Amino acid sequence: IDAGDETTLRADMDELYPADISGILYELDTTSARYLLSLLDKNVGAEILVNLDESIRDGFIASFTSEELAPFVEEMDSDDAVDLLNEQPVQLREEVIGLLNDREQARFIIDLLHYDEDVAGGLMQKELVKIQVDTNVNQCIEEIRQQAENVEKVYAVYVVDEAGKLLGFVSLKKIVLARKYAKIADIYEQDVVAVETYRPVTEVAEIMQKYDLDAVPVVNVQGRLLGRITIDDIVDVITEQAEDDIQAISGLSGEVEEDDTLWVRAKAQLPWLLAGAVGSLMAATVINGFQSELGKIAALAAFIPIIGSTGGNVGIQTASLIVQSLSDSSGLTYSLGQRLLRTLVLALVNGAVVGLLAGSYTLLIGEPRLFSVVGLSLLSVVLLASFMGTITPLLLNRIGINPAVASGPFITTANDLIGIGVYFLIAEYLLAEL
Amino acid sequence: IDAGDETTLRADMDELYPADISGILYELDTTSARYLLSLLDKNVGAEILVNLDESIRDGFIASFTSEELAPFVEEMDSDDAVDLLNEQPVQLREEVIGLLNDREQARFIIDLLHYDEDVAGGLMQKELVKIQVDTNVNQCIEEIRQQAENVEKVYAVYVVDEAGKLLGFVSLKKIVLARKYAKIADIYEQDVVAVETYRPVTEVAEIMQKYDLDAVPVVNVQGRLLGRITIDDIVDVITEQAEDDIQAISGLSGEVEEDDTLWVRAKAQLPWLLAGAVGSLMAATVINGFQSELGKIAALAAFIPIIGSTGGNVGIQTASLIVQSLSDSSGLTYSLGQRLLRTLVLALVNGAVVGLLAGSYTLLIGEPRLFSVVGLSLLSVVLLASFMGTITPLLLNRIGINPAVASGPFITTANDLIGIGVYFLIAEYLLAEL
Repeated sequence: IDAGDETTLRADMDELYPADISGILYELDTTSARYLLSLLDKNVGAEILVNLDESIRDGFIASFTSEELAPFVEEMDSDDAVDLLNEQPVQLREEVIGLLNDREQARFIIDLLHYDEDVAGGLMQKELVKIQVDTNVNQCIEEIRQQAENVEKVYAVYVVDEAGKLLGFVSLKKIVLARKYAKIADIYEQDVVAVETYRPVTEVAEIMQKYDLDAVPVVNVQGRLLGRITIDDIVDVITEQAEDDIQAISGLSGEVEEDDTLWVRAKAQLPWLLAGAVGSLMAATVINGFQSELGKIAALAAFIPIIGSTGGNVGIQTASLIVQSLSDSSGLTYSLGQRLLRTLVLALVNGAVVGLLAGSYTLLIGEPRLFSVVGLSLLSVVLLASFMGTITPLLLNRIGINPAVASGPFITTANDLIGIGVYFLIAEYLLAEL
Repeated sequence: IDAGDETTLRADMDELYPADISGILYELDTTSARYLLSLLDKNVGAEILVNLDESIRDGFIASFTSEELAPFVEEMDSDDAVDLLNEQPVQLREEVIGLLNDREQARFIIDLLHYDEDVAGGLMQKELVKIQVDTNVNQCIEEIRQQAENVEKVYAVYVVDEAGKLLGFVSLKKIVLARKYAKIADIYEQDVVAVETYRPVTEVAEIMQKYDLDAVPVVNVQGRLLGRITIDDIVDVITEQAEDDIQAISGLSGEVEEDDTLWVRAKAQLPWLLAGAVGSLMAATVINGFQSELGKIAALAAFIPIIGSTGGNVGIQTASLIVQSLSDSSGLTYSLGQRLLRTLVLALVNGAVVGLLAGSYTLLIGEPRLFSVVGLSLLSVVLLASFMGTITPLLLNRIGINPAVASGPFITTANDLIGIGVYFLIAEYLLAEL
């Protein structure tokens, strides 16, 4: 690259897939990366920009003028173009749209900018092949030919009436097999699953998984066909959703990656760390309140860790099962009462086992008077943590917060605090010495 | 249903998608469900059985004889048939295969039973449309017509030589647009991404996401075309992978769901609960070893929870970022040294903030002599937990264990234990009274 041998470079790049060239760009500085991109076809370059990791892409694109960026945006699918432009400053965004030669693409982009990222409208692309119901297969093939360059993957041709209302679809396979002059009206499939623009993307993902769809048409409330969502975008939605859940469970706020700057990572870690610390300091206040008891039986302190960690672990396990069952709409669903009952029965079993284990340990260290205190405390802690682990995600889900948050440090800390309170209360009640 | 009004039921079911009928079956007892299934077309019934949740399906299928099951298996895609048969007792499996009228389907199934579930061979289906390179578009359409019933979604026609070696593909769109007598040799795409049968499914998922593929051909080491993997199977792989990670982080072993029996859920929760309890009891032993110190300064016990929970939280956060970056092959990758350096710099910042917060609390409760003990301990704990959180997932990944396990109770407990040891050692060293 430093040698600037254009012909060799071009030839090398021709042999690579765009996704692989994206990988190479990560290794280059901005100047070399821009040089490499300038050698490529605009449509290959567009695909590379779409594939780039968001955090890296933003820095890279900041070095572009709107005149340089527009030709690439021209070649993108409308949904990818909108994703990219949404991350740019308003001025650059408006300039790029103004500079597009393809006025249809500009109109598509302006349309799509209206929608939130997390509803079907924000995920759909305008590129699709549609055809009037009163045409025939031959006309349909002609329409596919005209749209061939715009619509990379066709899957199916959508059938609409004069008002643009979605009536159904014809799969590409059916078109291949149909007679040339067969009427669309006779062969199209009327059972079509469509989603409205305002549907949450998670719901769209569920629908596409449930019915095994490659693409789903998006309609407005009147049923007019506005766009479509393809399976590759849904794969991204599912991947992101899973990452969000894992970050919530792990106590990371915001979307953060290992290669982010120190500041971004600290901002993601510190809120939950501090929240956890404050919770633990409240536990410290409780423990301090029992100083005289600790003075009498020092061994009481030894069981603080098991009380805290068992509560935390049980809480996470329980919440995690609830979160999973909330996100999985197939399968059985329980009423709140059934859920609690099932959880609490299990908690009795788990609590008894862990309680007995820890109780045996009190005998081992020669503190038999603590047997019932530790055992009963652990049983209560497991019961309480199971209750919290069931209630919290359901509550969060109800008020529209990602329920996976409930499996994170929040529940651990709360259980830690409650558990220690319960432990010392039981100790005070059961031990004649205190 | 109880009324047994066949015609109405049949008509009702005709209007529903198979995926919706699956939902209805969950609500019925086995007898009613079997009755309903017997009313439907065998291919609709097959799709419903494929869609059923595994845990429910196994119980349901146990009520079938091999004669009853075989007609449904006959109608399934080969990969779905194998998934279902793999869960059944060997005898039933062999009997069903023997009863299949479609000998090609039987051969497909026997072929696929050889492969592990977690490699490309175990995920692929044998149903695909392939054509010799020396044919033309018209012959290709004829081939699609013959396979139309077997191959539900075509996506592309694969081009092979006389030996069955994969040469490339022609997309369905290209076939629609091509002249009838165009030679396949002239129009097919030679740049084809294929995977070998032994590739792990997670790698296949990455490849399909990277290149935005709807289907990927599967070949043997000689390059012979054996089957294909379609995007809907990959969506399932990604969803399962995410669930596995979340369960590993949450300390659940085995695949478990909220609606599993008490016994299954206890078996999933107890191993990590007990492991955590044993770890905490080791911490108890450490604390017991410092009984005389606790006797002198009872306030020392108050900080046991913050030491434990901070170590646990930092460990999970750090491990989670590493796991995420391990599973995301795009983006930057660091050497072990770089990783540790970046983590430890961040840990200094986080440790200082949390240490100062907890230090201030010692002043608040009138124990200024504990300021440096608590502050320094927390700094050390955050540093150690960050180190463990970085090393453990990398190590687990190296030896082939899901690194997400490192974000779970294992790391929490280990950090709990280490943290408490460090805390008391620092206390003993810094406090003249002890």
